[in-house]
Amino acid sequence: MAKKYNICLDIGGTKILGAIFDENREIVYRLKKKTKEKGDSEENVEKVIIQVVEEMIEAAGIKKKDIHAIAAGAPGVIDQTAGIILFSPNLPWRNYDIRIAIENKFGVPFYIGNDVNVGVLGEWKYGAAKGCNNVVGFFVGTGMGGGLILDGKLFTGHKHKGAEFGHMVLNAEGPLCSCGQRGCLEAFSSKKGMMAYMRQQMSRGRKTMLAEQVEEGMIKSKMLKKAVREADPVAVEAVDRACHYLAIATGNMINAISPEVVIYGGGVIEAMGDQWVEKIQAEVDHYCMPSIRETVELKKAALGDDSILYGALSMIEAE
Amino acid sequence: MAKKYNICLDIGGTKILGAIFDENREIVYRLKKKTKEKGDSEENVEKVIIQVVEEMIEAAGIKKKDIHAIAAGAPGVIDQTAGIILFSPNLPWRNYDIRIAIENKFGVPFYIGNDVNVGVLGEWKYGAAKGCNNVVGFFVGTGMGGGLILDGKLFTGHKHKGAEFGHMVLNAEGPLCSCGQRGCLEAFSSKKGMMAYMRQQMSRGRKTMLAEQVEEGMIKSKMLKKAVREADPVAVEAVDRACHYLAIATGNMINAISPEVVIYGGGVIEAMGDQWVEKIQAEVDHYCMPSIRETVELKKAALGDDSILYGALSMIEAE
Repeated sequence: MAKKYNICLDIGGTKILGAIFDENREIVYRLKKKTKEKGDSEENVEKVIIQVVEEMIEAAGIKKKDIHAIAAGAPGVIDQTAGIILFSPNLPWRNYDIRIAIENKFGVPFYIGNDVNVGVLGEWKYGAAKGCNNVVGFFVGTGMGGGLILDGKLFTGHKHKGAEFGHMVLNAEGPLCSCGQRGCLEAFSSKKGMMAYMRQQMSRGRKTMLAEQVEEGMIKSKMLKKAVREADPVAVEAVDRACHYLAIATGNMINAISPEVVIYGGGVIEAMGDQWVEKIQAEVDHYCMPSIRETVELKKAALGDDSILYGALSMIEAE
Repeated sequence: MAKKYNICLDIGGTKILGAIFDENREIVYRLKKKTKEKGDSEENVEKVIIQVVEEMIEAAGIKKKDIHAIAAGAPGVIDQTAGIILFSPNLPWRNYDIRIAIENKFGVPFYIGNDVNVGVLGEWKYGAAKGCNNVVGFFVGTGMGGGLILDGKLFTGHKHKGAEFGHMVLNAEGPLCSCGQRGCLEAFSSKKGMMAYMRQQMSRGRKTMLAEQVEEGMIKSKMLKKAVREADPVAVEAVDRACHYLAIATGNMINAISPEVVIYGGGVIEAMGDQWVEKIQAEVDHYCMPSIRETVELKKAALGDDSILYGALSMIEAE
């Protein structure tokens, strides 16, 4: 029998998702693993990949010889064609050839790309952007990532550093972003941005049911959803402000690119359901040219938390 | 002897530039013609092209049979591949096949593209962006236009409506733009935006040597340069503010695309010399990711007022 399984990984800042796909693109085994500490997964991407792949193979009871290929999405600037990590935040590696390292270990082809780029690839091949030639993707989580499909292929720009919409400045006098700029999209519309707003309001003596999580510096997307559903005023304001600026950034990218579709993915979008996309749809008309607006659709990612896993699979299938 | 001349046109809102190129890409005849009234040239692009081409042929003393092809850059949404004007501001045409009309008239191939796209093409083929794969172009005049070369070819997006950086919202509470939005790049950094600022200051009783031009609603770029050189405070403020927002927009496009080069062209840039580009260079570091900034150059258009003429030539030569 031919090698029939593909192992795909979504390596995030606080957790790792893994899936074993069979030859029908069905997920036959899943893994979700918290990294011990915030940022821990970035300590050593290679070690994490090897450990998680071995754990999955054993737990799923499959044979190593039945594995066709392995692929992963990970944070950082990655040369997807060559499988080289050019730059990753908090990592000493520069121009690290991780493909060779993993292929030598497991003896099967290995592919890796920037996590958000891979997520947009997944939505383009198997999800909400299927069949489109020009796609803009926003992935909202702890931070804010971007991805572009242009003229029918993944676009990463010079030295694979493009699609950083998260750091589009929307108000140069706005709040400080972790990147050092002021008023970036990420500083308004990511979980980091929403927490900063809530922290500011708490410092003014206002109450919120998310106070403890904000103080710890980590809100779960589901808790955010709960707080909004229960009409917690500070949470509602943070979320409305996040949507407002995401609508402006969406308008800017629609004007710049004229995509057929804008896709919203990531943990926050997944937890908030269609609520965000509807709010953005209601507002975006004010922030882009009517003639361009009329030929673009705004959609929630169709693969939910699995966008990056399916994108990893698409990298394997493209070979 | 083979047909040796190409006729290229830059059809603007208030003037038309024309050039006859010989087979060595030398300009052997030039024409600069004001349109009677503001916006007049858009009344009938076809009529204007025919009239100007006939006038140039006659004045240059060349024979019609020596003309190889004609090409033009014009405002509007244009399908450059098909030679079809999809939409042009103030024009009743939709999906107008201007290629057929001109080719029937002169019996030679005709090419047309959006003026700023064609200008960026010119800079890419023969000017400041030669040899680059990813180029972002800002063209500053009465309005503000954008152009993109991505992965080694002109990118226009879905239905050729992309690269509208002029309407990137940089402050949603900013001044009203002619497009109906607030705080667009064009509302800050174009001549229209600078005039609006000066008009506002004049309404507060401040003096400027450009008062008359501002009241008439048309500042010549050279007058703007003169006012800045003579340290007219209102003009200096308008120009500094224009540069500031163009630096923010530049940072946003650098983050989104990771180009090798950003090109600044158009009448205002041409008149202001290197001053704008130097100001933007000094400021842009605050508005883009350092890792992306380090691999991008900021340059003034090398072909000056002729970017669009050379871009038109490049459309002919690409066939």
